[in-house]
Amino acid sequence: MVVVMKPGTQQQEIQALAHSFEEMGLQVGITNGVGCSILGLVGDTTAVDMDKISINPHVERVMRVQEPYKKANRKFHPEDSVVDVQGVKIGGGHFAVIAGPCSVESAEQVTSIARDVKASGAAMLRGGAFKPRTSPYSFQGMGESGLDLLLEAKAATGLPIVSEIMAPRYAELFEEKVDLVQIGARNMQNFDLLKEVGKLSKPVLLKRGLANTYEEWIMSAEYIMAAGNENVILCERGVRTFETYTRNTLDLSAIPAIRQMSHLPIIVDPSHAAGMYWMVEPLALAATAIGADGLIVEVHNDPAHAKCDGQQSLTPEKFDTLMKKVESLRAWREGQN
Amino acid sequence: MVVVMKPGTQQQEIQALAHSFEEMGLQVGITNGVGCSILGLVGDTTAVDMDKISINPHVERVMRVQEPYKKANRKFHPEDSVVDVQGVKIGGGHFAVIAGPCSVESAEQVTSIARDVKASGAAMLRGGAFKPRTSPYSFQGMGESGLDLLLEAKAATGLPIVSEIMAPRYAELFEEKVDLVQIGARNMQNFDLLKEVGKLSKPVLLKRGLANTYEEWIMSAEYIMAAGNENVILCERGVRTFETYTRNTLDLSAIPAIRQMSHLPIIVDPSHAAGMYWMVEPLALAATAIGADGLIVEVHNDPAHAKCDGQQSLTPEKFDTLMKKVESLRAWREGQN
Amino acid sequence: MVVVMKPGTQQQEIQALAHSFEEMGLQVGITNGVGCSILGLVGDTTAVDMDKISINPHVERVMRVQEPYKKANRKFHPEDSVVDVQGVKIGGGHFAVIAGPCSVESAEQVTSIARDVKASGAAMLRGGAFKPRTSPYSFQGMGESGLDLLLEAKAATGLPIVSEIMAPRYAELFEEKVDLVQIGARNMQNFDLLKEVGKLSKPVLLKRGLANTYEEWIMSAEYIMAAGNENVILCERGVRTFETYTRNTLDLSAIPAIRQMSHLPIIVDPSHAAGMYWMVEPLALAATAIGADGLIVEVHNDPAHAKCDGQQSLTPEKFDTLMKKVESLRAWREGQN
Amino acid sequence: MVVVMKPGTQQQEIQALAHSFEEMGLQVGITNGVGCSILGLVGDTTAVDMDKISINPHVERVMRVQEPYKKANRKFHPEDSVVDVQGVKIGGGHFAVIAGPCSVESAEQVTSIARDVKASGAAMLRGGAFKPRTSPYSFQGMGESGLDLLLEAKAATGLPIVSEIMAPRYAELFEEKVDLVQIGARNMQNFDLLKEVGKLSKPVLLKRGLANTYEEWIMSAEYIMAAGNENVILCERGVRTFETYTRNTLDLSAIPAIRQMSHLPIIVDPSHAAGMYWMVEPLALAATAIGADGLIVEVHNDPAHAKCDGQQSLTPEKFDTLMKKVESLRAWREGQN
Repeated sequence: MVVVMKPGTQQQEIQALAHSFEEMGLQVGITNGVGCSILGLVGDTTAVDMDKISINPHVERVMRVQEPYKKANRKFHPEDSVVDVQGVKIGGGHFAVIAGPCSVESAEQVTSIARDVKASGAAMLRGGAFKPRTSPYSFQGMGESGLDLLLEAKAATGLPIVSEIMAPRYAELFEEKVDLVQIGARNMQNFDLLKEVGKLSKPVLLKRGLANTYEEWIMSAEYIMAAGNENVILCERGVRTFETYTRNTLDLSAIPAIRQMSHLPIIVDPSHAAGMYWMVEPLALAATAIGADGLIVEVHNDPAHAKCDGQQSLTPEKFDTLMKKVESLRAWREGQN
Repeated sequence: MVVVMKPGTQQQEIQALAHSFEEMGLQVGITNGVGCSILGLVGDTTAVDMDKISINPHVERVMRVQEPYKKANRKFHPEDSVVDVQGVKIGGGHFAVIAGPCSVESAEQVTSIARDVKASGAAMLRGGAFKPRTSPYSFQGMGESGLDLLLEAKAATGLPIVSEIMAPRYAELFEEKVDLVQIGARNMQNFDLLKEVGKLSKPVLLKRGLANTYEEWIMSAEYIMAAGNENVILCERGVRTFETYTRNTLDLSAIPAIRQMSHLPIIVDPSHAAGMYWMVEPLALAATAIGADGLIVEVHNDPAHAKCDGQQSLTPEKFDTLMKKVESLRAWREGQN
Repeated sequence: MVVVMKPGTQQQEIQALAHSFEEMGLQVGITNGVGCSILGLVGDTTAVDMDKISINPHVERVMRVQEPYKKANRKFHPEDSVVDVQGVKIGGGHFAVIAGPCSVESAEQVTSIARDVKASGAAMLRGGAFKPRTSPYSFQGMGESGLDLLLEAKAATGLPIVSEIMAPRYAELFEEKVDLVQIGARNMQNFDLLKEVGKLSKPVLLKRGLANTYEEWIMSAEYIMAAGNENVILCERGVRTFETYTRNTLDLSAIPAIRQMSHLPIIVDPSHAAGMYWMVEPLALAATAIGADGLIVEVHNDPAHAKCDGQQSLTPEKFDTLMKKVESLRAWREGQN
Repeated sequence: MVVVMKPGTQQQEIQALAHSFEEMGLQVGITNGVGCSILGLVGDTTAVDMDKISINPHVERVMRVQEPYKKANRKFHPEDSVVDVQGVKIGGGHFAVIAGPCSVESAEQVTSIARDVKASGAAMLRGGAFKPRTSPYSFQGMGESGLDLLLEAKAATGLPIVSEIMAPRYAELFEEKVDLVQIGARNMQNFDLLKEVGKLSKPVLLKRGLANTYEEWIMSAEYIMAAGNENVILCERGVRTFETYTRNTLDLSAIPAIRQMSHLPIIVDPSHAAGMYWMVEPLALAATAIGADGLIVEVHNDPAHAKCDGQQSLTPEKFDTLMKKVESLRAWREGQN
């Protein structure tokens, strides 16, 4: 941590502040100069409150130089984490594709799609039972019965199931029925929910918030890990910008960046980023080429009548074509190393 | 709603689509031309799913021309709504200032601040008992006992109390103890929480999300209203941009814009927008001049030792100076009409 | 400046780097600790290239702690600058309103508007002769003859004239004919143009770029000042965000922020920020309340037939009402000090 | 174009407005309904001024449904454009890599790099002679003599040269000496410069502005094309967001989007987007996989002593590794079709 003092601050004040840091167990170095003085603080600064320091009337600015996260930090855990979802591995060289409908609509729909995506090579089945919708007048999902339909599809195909949890009170239900518990973008900083899924034994898929930085995203993973659940997979799904042509702006730089910052696996959701089915394949290929650990793709057997997000869903045929290209590109990538 | 057809679409396809809209009870007008055809749809389109229409392979684009909100819409409720919080009115010409510490820390702290802000003219007391913090290692608030300290301060001063609810399971607790239930920016699209506070008898203070549009914000108010609670106050607190000097970019255009779109009252939080105590007063004056229905301001008797947000808190003395200016400016404004 | 070394860097490397900074005339302080070391650099760092330092394979991060601007910096020039435009003063307590049409269309139009805005209290006349338009098929302005019509209006009213320069080759023309030379938002980082207006004797009105930070904006002023012209007025006109209801998001926090960072005067353009005439008055009042040194407002005698920006132009009548309020609010503000 | 009338507008007013559009040669269709009426306008609306229509007091909103660009529009030019730069083709299946230093520093430096990048497979040489720098105190480039050094490197290697033009007055110089004239991000809406390069016989590389939409970008290409120069190559280089880890957020969705909207070739600049050399390779691979028509990459033989952007430059060795992967990935892509 670095503390910059205001011009003209007395040595006495600087020494007093330095002393208060030393009492917190930090090493302190002071650089004095005309115009300003700088304090360098080294040690475990995760619990130091920057805001409190900046209240000091002699302090001009406080800057963090070490990451505020520990458990998710690659510096303290240099090897890639591998998350195991009922035998399907993600991370550390393991790549997996999750596919399925935006929302669960019927047993037939979801089992049919599950069979199709499995045949094309998907390793897990996604499907929304509880749906976050901007409008209270839109379809809100089938709820618990939607989870049961996913379990039927799992029984028929063996695919582990992925579904979004929207409130802490469903924790037990998801612990029982879901294999990979998804936190949606709008709940990335729903801290009560993060703490709750931190207590589950099931792994968590944490989507990036619409306007959250890499650091805030990792801090939300840290919430889950600090509560006891270290099986977190990150998912980049696009951020909000001034561009309106796409639903969101997919930020693929997140893949190499997160790889540098953290040991957690990271996958990409090209469907929500694009918002248009014809853009899913090119984005999925780019995500694969840049080194994502997997993809999550919306597939619907009848997009024109889907209860949500039909315009960004692939048909099983288009998904099959996509999977062939993705697998071939994965093989190319492995040939490069 | 407007549907733009792709160039070269056959009349037959256009007629079929038009017919399907008429069956939904909408009036449909068709403009044919070289290059493209346009369908204009008039009627109650709130429940029409734009995404589904855009799946049609002949459709190039779908655009909404009417607002997707009803209960919050000024068109259907031309007069300003006035929200009453234990006798304190906000909206429709009534202006009120909410003040208090970021977080409740002790009985003495909160009661002392409550007395000070009341003496300066504040009409309600704010104080965080459950705190949303980016880091799991930061102080998370006193929880329920914090609410009890607020109630002590209320007993001592008569000020209604405002506090943030972070999860649906606290609904009963807040219904019992809190006078104005706050939804924080990070929970603006926590739809389960919105539905839950929609069932309370207590009014709700809904902060704007960090990267949410006016329309999305009003749609979140619509969630609360659709669940039965029409006493919603909106609160602008700054949005996220590329600028890093300020904590957030306060968007004061929201005041006249929301006034045009909705009948709900709107107040401004200059403390969170600025993130620096010395910027609170100028932003509060600008908010008052532009016509906000109130302010919510962080005040702490000892900012240097506050458990959170000390750097953006005013001392009681500075708050008193601010209130004198705000009241004088309100008087000026009223003299203009 | 602060240089953070990577974990595990040898003391020898750290000393070598420190030595290289000392050779540049800087004071260097080193804080060593487990995990990382920090170098604090104090002295004149404006010319130090952060990018070059960050190339060093042992360096993790470089952070600037002092401002990269000198001439525009309030630290080295604590009193407000006052810019004089043909006798009209802006800054240091002097407030002035600039008004006029988006584009000059005819002698009659511009002289008529000039008379009207002068009668209402405007101190300068604005009018576009060279127009930056997104489309090559839109009206591009009257060019030099537009400047001559502005001069006719000046002769008739005595109002100094303000107009936008779009390319370095017009520098001589503007030096001769225009009293306050405007740099538009899209040219804020047109460095050749900045250098050119830096050679003029006429003062410059520098609009903030659509996506530029306060620091970049001041650096553009620094370009003009470094070239010899210290008469720069800054103008906040809204930035680009995800919000689409308004044309731009007016960032009024810029007023107190710039006041802290720089001694240059700053005015506000509510017309371009809002993009809608009915929002101009509330934004203008907020800008006045927060302490702007002036306003620039679009006024047209026949907005429905204006060649550009009609939808955000006030009629002379509405401008007159606005001016009465602005003057009354200025009087209120002065009564507060 | 679609015009939405305010609720309660009289039929007479609607008819009058419709009539005025018919006089402009447009077909007009009217949809009347309770609450609002919609006018659909079909025909050549590129020259219709939306702003003027929205001034009409009965009009609630005006929305464009057809693109405002013609020459760059894929609808009127379905085949890909191929741009030829001294025999090097880009677009329509032709892929080319441009490489070289951020700025030209000496004959030796630029010729040595040119030889290296040619050996690795680059098809053109980039090098900045005139440099846009945020600070007036940073190195501003060698100017004209820098172009001469590029010509020496061209003579030695045969590589066509690419360099950035910063002001209209250099047009003749660039016409004579440069093979592909670059417009930088900060000048994307420097309309005088766009018009000037529109008169050159040399092709133009148009970078996307930091906060510009796809449509605005294509409109800037339209400026160049409307002035007579149809050889425009677009270049995505990242946009400005709230994320500060990367220098800019690379928006790879631009590749499929622009492909849909326009027939112009589009390449990617991973160096400026990332701002960190270690992120260049992953971004370059993603760009290649998604179907960019080429890359522009910063390469320096001594990044630690580069006069600018050293931290994002590849060494010739790293560039060679990158090229091998890019070529192999291109071969993979071609095998997919």
